[in-house]
Amino acid sequence: MTVTPWKPLADTKRQSILDAIPSKWRIQEPIPADTELRNVTGAYIQKFLTPREIEITELDAYGIADRTTTGEWSAVEVTEAFCHRAALAHQLVNCLHEIFFDAAIDNAKRLDAYFAEHKKPVGPLHGLPVSLKDQFHVKDVETTMGYVGWIGTFQGLKDDPRNRVFESELVRELRGLGAVLYCKTSVPATLMTGETVNNIITYTTNPKNRLLSSGGSSGGEGALIALKGSPGGFGTDIGGSIRAPAAFNGLYGIRPSSGRIPYEGAANSMDGQNSILSVIGPLAGTARSLQLLFKAVLGQQPWLYDPLVLELPWRSEIELDTRRLVEQSAKDPSKLAFAIMKDTGVAKPHPPITRALQIVEQTLKRLGHTIIEWTPPPHITADEIAGTVYGMDGGADVQYHLGLAGEKPAPQVILPAGLPQKTAQEVAGINVAKREYQKQYMDYWNSTAQLTGTGRPVDAVVCPVAPHAAVIPNRYDYVGYTSFLNLLDYTSVAIPVTHADKSVDVAQPRDFLSEVDEKLYNGY
Amino acid sequence: MTVTPWKPLADTKRQSILDAIPSKWRIQEPIPADTELRNVTGAYIQKFLTPREIEITELDAYGIADRTTTGEWSAVEVTEAFCHRAALAHQLVNCLHEIFFDAAIDNAKRLDAYFAEHKKPVGPLHGLPVSLKDQFHVKDVETTMGYVGWIGTFQGLKDDPRNRVFESELVRELRGLGAVLYCKTSVPATLMTGETVNNIITYTTNPKNRLLSSGGSSGGEGALIALKGSPGGFGTDIGGSIRAPAAFNGLYGIRPSSGRIPYEGAANSMDGQNSILSVIGPLAGTARSLQLLFKAVLGQQPWLYDPLVLELPWRSEIELDTRRLVEQSAKDPSKLAFAIMKDTGVAKPHPPITRALQIVEQTLKRLGHTIIEWTPPPHITADEIAGTVYGMDGGADVQYHLGLAGEKPAPQVILPAGLPQKTAQEVAGINVAKREYQKQYMDYWNSTAQLTGTGRPVDAVVCPVAPHAAVIPNRYDYVGYTSFLNLLDYTSVAIPVTHADKSVDVAQPRDFLSEVDEKLYNGY
Repeated sequence: MTVTPWKPLADTKRQSILDAIPSKWRIQEPIPADTELRNVTGAYIQKFLTPREIEITELDAYGIADRTTTGEWSAVEVTEAFCHRAALAHQLVNCLHEIFFDAAIDNAKRLDAYFAEHKKPVGPLHGLPVSLKDQFHVKDVETTMGYVGWIGTFQGLKDDPRNRVFESELVRELRGLGAVLYCKTSVPATLMTGETVNNIITYTTNPKNRLLSSGGSSGGEGALIALKGSPGGFGTDIGGSIRAPAAFNGLYGIRPSSGRIPYEGAANSMDGQNSILSVIGPLAGTARSLQLLFKAVLGQQPWLYDPLVLELPWRSEIELDTRRLVEQSAKDPSKLAFAIMKDTGVAKPHPPITRALQIVEQTLKRLGHTIIEWTPPPHITADEIAGTVYGMDGGADVQYHLGLAGEKPAPQVILPAGLPQKTAQEVAGINVAKREYQKQYMDYWNSTAQLTGTGRPVDAVVCPVAPHAAVIPNRYDYVGYTSFLNLLDYTSVAIPVTHADKSVDVAQPRDFLSEVDEKLYNGY
Repeated sequence: MTVTPWKPLADTKRQSILDAIPSKWRIQEPIPADTELRNVTGAYIQKFLTPREIEITELDAYGIADRTTTGEWSAVEVTEAFCHRAALAHQLVNCLHEIFFDAAIDNAKRLDAYFAEHKKPVGPLHGLPVSLKDQFHVKDVETTMGYVGWIGTFQGLKDDPRNRVFESELVRELRGLGAVLYCKTSVPATLMTGETVNNIITYTTNPKNRLLSSGGSSGGEGALIALKGSPGGFGTDIGGSIRAPAAFNGLYGIRPSSGRIPYEGAANSMDGQNSILSVIGPLAGTARSLQLLFKAVLGQQPWLYDPLVLELPWRSEIELDTRRLVEQSAKDPSKLAFAIMKDTGVAKPHPPITRALQIVEQTLKRLGHTIIEWTPPPHITADEIAGTVYGMDGGADVQYHLGLAGEKPAPQVILPAGLPQKTAQEVAGINVAKREYQKQYMDYWNSTAQLTGTGRPVDAVVCPVAPHAAVIPNRYDYVGYTSFLNLLDYTSVAIPVTHADKSVDVAQPRDFLSEVDEKLYNGY
């Protein structure tokens, strides 16, 4: 028999999360097995809610803030509705690491009192519940980031005075904006996988199909928002960790360039690795909600509190110019030019993704916009550099944190096993290779101004978020559709297009681009 | 007898630089020994020049551009005057690595022809000669960066097709602005010292006192501009390499934050080390000339051509707000608040520096501005982190480049001898330590808003550039007055205040803060 001293710790923590759910919000009836009832969104979850709770929770973040900042809806009513729905969501798909509904409702009461007294909101997110990936420290709440060894500690440090006291900079700013914090969402241990699995909450399944993954590493966010247990939240992304959960759950998610949303004081994997920086961004059900959350945070001038944030406010002039351009394109649609990247040249996407791209392409063509061919510098180079960066420390950081409790991670968790650490000079060499690739890509992007007919380079490039829709557990084999954008440090947004449909999306025999391409094809 | 196979190579290269000076511009009379004539600025260099050449070369870059962009002065006349004076400067203090006067005069002719035809300048630097530190690649010209092993190669690579063909991004942009490039200035081999010495040009002395150093690593720029052989040029700074030569030569020099002036395609030491980034900035005789050069480069939108440059144009609104603030302070001087940092707490400055600080403090007080005490986080921490970063690769990069020709560097050149390379995880740890220090310093800076009475934190902190004025060779023992700003990545400007005066600046006996403090005191 194997000794697993960490198991009772993990079990106790898992139980304590469930115990934090008030009994009135516990699902009393047996929850059907995932094979029996795959989809728990819509009608299934609604049956545990009142019509008013459904009304509140099915509005998007933008719509809710519109009502809570004007006093139309009270912060308490909205908060209670989301706490209830988040509690249900967790019972259905294991998407929460931390539950602090009481503190949230207290906070909402203070917000309502403030509004009653001052006849104005605390800030643009007054009364809006916002969920957080379990990398952010919140007072009185633990951060495990999926590591058993972090239970009862501050990032694995025992007796650290910051434990349950310290708050991450983004948390401070969200409070200043009037947001209500009420839960932290699940992540894979190490954060370095496209699924969400750890020894505490086990596996976060996809609410639309519980046999599949909710994505990762912000998979708890993806699942919770898809179940409308949160109107919007913040995830992080170093290789696709915002965009994959957004895509797998039919949500919008933005990975901004580095230096916009403050990472200061948040937990991380391989903290200080600065060849490819993990960045924070919002996920939500609508694009306007992403804008609300992003703009609100910039309004807090995070560059005064986080040395890595750029002094770059929300630039309304760029927004206006872009809106003007879109309006003009209604008259002359050829004034907008796009490129469609159908594959990375390393691995082709599955049929549902190819079909989604065709939908976008046909729509853009039908509207009369210009579409140019996209022949960028080889993506295999991006894949190789990103892969090298992710394994640069030979797994030392994640091995250390897994080792704190002696836990064994799930097989999805990628461990650079036995690789030597890179030296400082090798790290510098990787940074040069990255910069040279960025320069090549930048020059290529600029060169498209010759092809668009608009006088500008392409206005956007459309590409898959992943080679597949939500995957079967342990089958996320290729992150090259997202990680090249982390390497380039370009802003990228996941936009939902359609759903997989096995009656339409039939695989045709074809030649393979690579080993991973063949593996992906066979995995369909 | 020691075998020095690199010596003939270095000698030939040194001679070829002198040979590039047209015979009409060679100093025919014997140049007095440095002990005999320390100061070669002013009357001494002027005697080789015509009154018209003196008129042109003694105007600042801003004034010259004002005349060359309006057609008042021809680019050819201005270029020839500076070529002549730069040729003299090099013969007096060894400040040039590359001379390409013919190409410059040809370029000036084309600029004059353009102006004659279009009645307008090519750009804001039309006809302005600009000198460049020998890290920038210019077509038809070599880049040695002070390494004998780079002679006849591209950054040490033999038969590289880029050799004498490739141009650095800043060079491309300066040409686009109408600047005339005519020479590249001396640097210490490795760039990692506050003096300028290498096996090719030997030692760049200080034009005001040729027994002393011109500073480093942009020491050739400092010496050339001090002799008015250039109206302004671009240096680089990773620990003080723009500010020290500016200070030692009575010039203005700005070290901007990283990501402003494009480094793309320039040679560097430890390229890809991105814990503390080397940055490019201008040096010139007047503050308005720095602004001209800086603003002109940003006008080229370098962020479209260098992936590490931020999309951050010259922000006129900040300039206007600042000017307005200064105007208002004429009425109510307490509306501007400064701090004076008298020492780093690790090593005190020499008497001339302390006196210069007193001049500034007394002037600010006399004008009625607010002065607060400056008690920042310990600078010893900054010194230690910066020192660790500079030696992170255990000297592997510089040893490699010195080894190409088997050359032995001057003793000033700091070689992390026998130190092991840091691992990727250690590099990450250093990056975390740096970020934590930046956060502490940022919080401290913000906290001064409580003390200034202006509602803002201090408007500026005044501190020495070095613990000493221009040093005796091999006595630059402490870079902590500049390197902490590289670690923090704050914008900093060297501003000339006064000159050392041994009749006034007398050292008093005192206790010592540290070993380096004692060494510095005894070195005075």
